[in-house]
Amino acid sequence: MKKSLGAKTLVYPTPAWIVAVYDQAGKPNAMTVAWAGLCCSDPPAVAVSVRQETYTYQCLLDRQSFTVNVPSEQYLKEIDFMGIVSGRNTDKFSLTGLTPLKSDLVDAPYIKEFPLNLECKLIHTLEVGLHTQFVGQILDVKVGSQFLTKQGIPDLKKINPVIFANGMYYGIGEVLGKAFSIGKNIAPPF
Amino acid sequence: MKKSLGAKTLVYPTPAWIVAVYDQAGKPNAMTVAWAGLCCSDPPAVAVSVRQETYTYQCLLDRQSFTVNVPSEQYLKEIDFMGIVSGRNTDKFSLTGLTPLKSDLVDAPYIKEFPLNLECKLIHTLEVGLHTQFVGQILDVKVGSQFLTKQGIPDLKKINPVIFANGMYYGIGEVLGKAFSIGKNIAPPF
Repeated sequence: MKKSLGAKTLVYPTPAWIVAVYDQAGKPNAMTVAWAGLCCSDPPAVAVSVRQETYTYQCLLDRQSFTVNVPSEQYLKEIDFMGIVSGRNTDKFSLTGLTPLKSDLVDAPYIKEFPLNLECKLIHTLEVGLHTQFVGQILDVKVGSQFLTKQGIPDLKKINPVIFANGMYYGIGEVLGKAFSIGKNIAPPF
Repeated sequence: MKKSLGAKTLVYPTPAWIVAVYDQAGKPNAMTVAWAGLCCSDPPAVAVSVRQETYTYQCLLDRQSFTVNVPSEQYLKEIDFMGIVSGRNTDKFSLTGLTPLKSDLVDAPYIKEFPLNLECKLIHTLEVGLHTQFVGQILDVKVGSQFLTKQGIPDLKKINPVIFANGMYYGIGEVLGKAFSIGKNIAPPF
């Protein structure tokens, strides 16, 4: 028996990512986003949704650049904090103690302490409603070397990304199976 | 020390959701997507990216409707299967034994066995590159009543959604903390 809950943004999982930008004066700013996801393989692209009233919104338009920073769960307080306050009247980096580093390829800072950083060049904006979607072409992905396996692949359990759902944060769970493999036997011969 | 991995779609978490549609003949079809996310709070909207060569692509344009279905991890084989084969020459519902039900508000089927179903009306398409992004306004969210808490809230541990990362599937982990709360004390007074 299914129950209708109405028109809601209710779906799992959604990420807890930090979008970082420079403002017009060059001050680094960052905000937490959960309305976001990858959106294209070629060019590799990621979409993040931001409300017009945020300080980050104008920075994105001015600089045409942003980074997506994937935090580890040890930074839960910082993740939450950067989704509560506005960069218009606070310096979120100095308050959290996080370190903004200059990107190599785009005009936006990335966050040193977070394991995974995507340098993105703005290629599309889409006005959806309360949120505007910013689509960034991913020009580089940086990973802290301590988060890589010996084979040079990011180790998800070391990265420990955070999931946002139902107003709570969750960790990542256990490996369930291999994609493009575990379902092959459903319809033999394949 | 950060290591550059180049321009890649490498970020965590991404979902494993099933997009369901009707084709021109009325046959239900479904495909697995991971390049997807919420994109607006008002109207509530979700974005899913689909390649032009898929069978689902034309169905989305023809019907201007889709559902997003969140599977439980017990359906891992079905999730994977629906991302491997094409509905052009297979009937994924009959092969998996999953049940397509007629939506109440949109011209697309939803999947009975999956705990969470979003009925979506197509409101935007955005050509990004290899993938086209389809933005759907969420008109209703349906949840199996057995997946609700006594307070009527979806129970994430019962729903057990699946995460796609590094070519593997992962489960959801433990609760880490409460959003818009745990970070409040970083900058007193708040």
